Formats: sequence, structure tokens, C-alpha cells
Amino acid sequence: MVSGKGSQPGITEARLKERGIALPDGPTPLGTYAEAVQTGNLLFLSGMLPVIDHKPKYLGRLGKELDSEAGRDAARTAALAALAIAKQHLGSLDRVVRVVQLGVFIATHGDFFDQPKVADAASDLLRDVFGNDKLPVRSVTGVASLPLGVPVEIEVIFEIIH
Amino acid sequence: MVSGKGSQPGITEARLKERGIALPDGPTPLGTYAEAVQTGNLLFLSGMLPVIDHKPKYLGRLGKELDSEAGRDAARTAALAALAIAKQHLGSLDRVVRVVQLGVFIATHGDFFDQPKVADAASDLLRDVFGNDKLPVRSVTGVASLPLGVPVEIEVIFEIIH
Amino acid sequence: MVSGKGSQPGITEARLKERGIALPDGPTPLGTYAEAVQTGNLLFLSGMLPVIDHKPKYLGRLGKELDSEAGRDAARTAALAALAIAKQHLGSLDRVVRVVQLGVFIATHGDFFDQPKVADAASDLLRDVFGNDKLPVRSVTGVASLPLGVPVEIEVIFEIIH
Repeated sequence: MVSGKGSQPGITEARLKERGIALPDGPTPLGTYAEAVQTGNLLFLSGMLPVIDHKPKYLGRLGKELDSEAGRDAARTAALAALAIAKQHLGSLDRVVRVVQLGVFIATHGDFFDQPKVADAASDLLRDVFGNDKLPVRSVTGVASLPLGVPVEIEVIFEIIH
Repeated sequence: MVSGKGSQPGITEARLKERGIALPDGPTPLGTYAEAVQTGNLLFLSGMLPVIDHKPKYLGRLGKELDSEAGRDAARTAALAALAIAKQHLGSLDRVVRVVQLGVFIATHGDFFDQPKVADAASDLLRDVFGNDKLPVRSVTGVASLPLGVPVEIEVIFEIIH
Repeated sequence: MVSGKGSQPGITEARLKERGIALPDGPTPLGTYAEAVQTGNLLFLSGMLPVIDHKPKYLGRLGKELDSEAGRDAARTAALAALAIAKQHLGSLDRVVRVVQLGVFIATHGDFFDQPKVADAASDLLRDVFGNDKLPVRSVTGVASLPLGVPVEIEVIFEIIH
């Protein structure tokens, strides 16, 4: 049975409900691109921003206009957008075998080095949804700027049941 | 027939001609790496720069030495280099099923937030070549600096007919 | 025979010995993520830092606190960490068919444009280990900051014998 490859039917969607995690509407592209593309059993997502109802929830950089707590909430908001897009594309998050890779880009200014703590807000959400035995690899970088002026962007590759 | 997986024989190369898109010579590596690597039906490309005949077409950052129009032309130039390398590796762009992922790194200074507009110059070219129903996912970040001092670097993963 | 796909049994581990390349202990995660995730015949690694025994070997940015030579040693140290994690996950580096993609993020300040020279210290190590005919593609960017304040982070995708 295909789902034996790494997921149990129903478990992820059940976990979302159990933990009261409500998914927002997925974002719409800011330009000429798609929010999700599937190739084989990999699902690539566009860079997800902390945007709600087409409006940035936060603007600014960590180490300047924003502190770590705002950065963490921005990271979590972007991760929720990623889940929304994945669900929209797949029909159900139960088709996700695991998150393979998580990239977290954080707009920083000067000597800000709490990137891992900010990124963990996205990682912790993914762990709560997909399980502690399915953690993705992660790359975290501090960048000079992000689209719209938001503080965080996340990039996700899922392995899915084809 | 294998090409039924996502492309029609001849259509991409025909589109290039039709639209008068001439490909430059592909770039050569600036160090110890390859410009393209195939694994399974994915073709990964090195970060492509706006370089013509081994010389940077633009130098500088967006929001400082360069404006959005220069950034857009740089992004398009880098995307043309990506197509040139893909064609060199594959023999024909008709072997491309789609672009899966496009990463756009833009060197920015200060409060520059027009990254999506700059990135669209690369995305629009790829759409014109591969079709509007085959848009890739995209991540756009503003970085502190890029090799040689160029303003834009793009990263591409293609799905190809194996 | 499976190893005919791109590697010869024993050759990589033998090369490590021959060249006297000793692998350090692999790093441990700084947050909620895994250091390596396999999907199909691809092995993704988390962003590797120049960390030895849980302590950063270098702190600072290129073009400010650190020069290119420090950056090069940091890049090589991060690449050694990547090899250590790959070996830990695979049992033997002989299961690596090739490095597919190498991403190099370099924390830079101001007008620093020697990114390719810094990145080559990581690339050269990988070439020495896996061979000159197996060079990966590479993307190099100058970023604003990196976790812990280190100057270099590298990202690696391997193709492996499944």
C-alpha cells in the first residue's frame, strides 16, 4: 500500500484539527510564477511570505525595526501559508510523506544572530503537523531585503504520495 | 511516447525562433564547478549571472548604483544564460518538460522592495519560452552582494525528458 | 550492477585516506531540524557551518572582520562537516554517486566580490574527494548575516546509491 511509504492515512489532517491549527487562504502570486509545482514525488513551493489577506503582517528587518518575537510570528505565519498552498495543491495534507527541505530567509540588519530561534517558529509548526520523526533539513540565512519589505520568507520542498 | 509526459516535440525551439529569442554562448565556470548537472529527470543549473562574453553586463546594487530597469535587464540576461546552458547540455530545449524552480537573488541596498518586478523579467522570459501553463515556483531574496559585483543571479531546476 | 551508475566501490573512502582527509564529528542541530534527509536517491543536507566541537571556528563577515583566507578555511571546514554528516547518514561515502548541487552563502559587508574564490575552498575539497568529472553545480551569494555570526554556510544535495 502506497501510504505505507511514510505516512498513515488521515493522521496529519487529524493532527491539525486536534491542535486547533486553522489554515488561512493560500497566497496568490506577486508575479509570473506558480505557488506550487510537482515533479515526481516532490512538491516544490514558492517562497512563502508572512502575508494575510494579501497584506504583509510585518514589515521591517530583524535587528532594526523588528525583534525576534515579531520574526518568530512572521516565520510561523509564512509556514501556515506553505501548509495552505500544499493543501490546496494536494487536496489533503495526508498526502505529504514529509517535509524534505526548509529554507528560511530572514531580513537582518547589523549584528543579528538569532536566526535559528526565529526559524524554529516555522520548524516547530511543521514538527507539530508532520511529527518529530519527520523533521526536514534546514538552511537559514540572513538576507539584505525581502519582497514587499517583509522580515521572513520560507521555502519548502515536500515529499508526497504520488 | 515519452514526450507525452509534458511537452510537444519541437514546440519550444519553434517558439524561440518565432519570438526572435537568440541564445548567447553559455557562460563558463568562475571556479571549481559545473554549469549543469542532471540527476534522474531533473537538471540543476549553477547560479547564472548577467554576463556576456565573460564580462558582467551590469555592476552594482539595486537601491544604490542601479535602478529597477537595469535590474530587470540583468535578470533577463541571466535567464538567457540559463537557457543557453540548458540547450548546450540537452541538445534541444524541446527536452525540457518545464521549469520546476526559479531562484532569483538580487543584490540590494537599503529599502529596496521591488524584487518581484525585477524577478519578473526572468520569469516572463521563461513563460514566453515554455508556456503560461508551465510556470515554475519562485523564491526571490535581496542579498548583500553577488559574485563579480553583479546585481542579479538566478538559479534554475528543470524537469526534463530523461 | 548498481554502482556502475556512477561510482566505483571503495574509491571515495580510499581517496579520503590517500589524501589524509580526516572527517570531524558531524554537527548537531541548532534547532528543530534534521542534519540529513533522504528522498529517493537524493540526500539533502542542512546548511553546514564552520563549527568544530560545537564552537564556531570563525565569526565575522568578509570585507569587514575577516579576509578571504579566513573565509576559505571556513568554507572548507563547513564542507568537511557536510562530508561527516553524509558519512554518518550513509555509512560510507562510497554510496555517493556525486554531489549534485552546492550552495555557498557568504556573509559579506560592503564591496566584497571574491565570493567565487572563497567558495572554491569548499568546491576543491569536494572535487578532491569525489573526482574532477563529478563537479556539482554551484550557487554563491553574499548574505547579510548567518547563524551564530559565522562567515560561511554551505548547502549540499548528493545523489546516492539508493
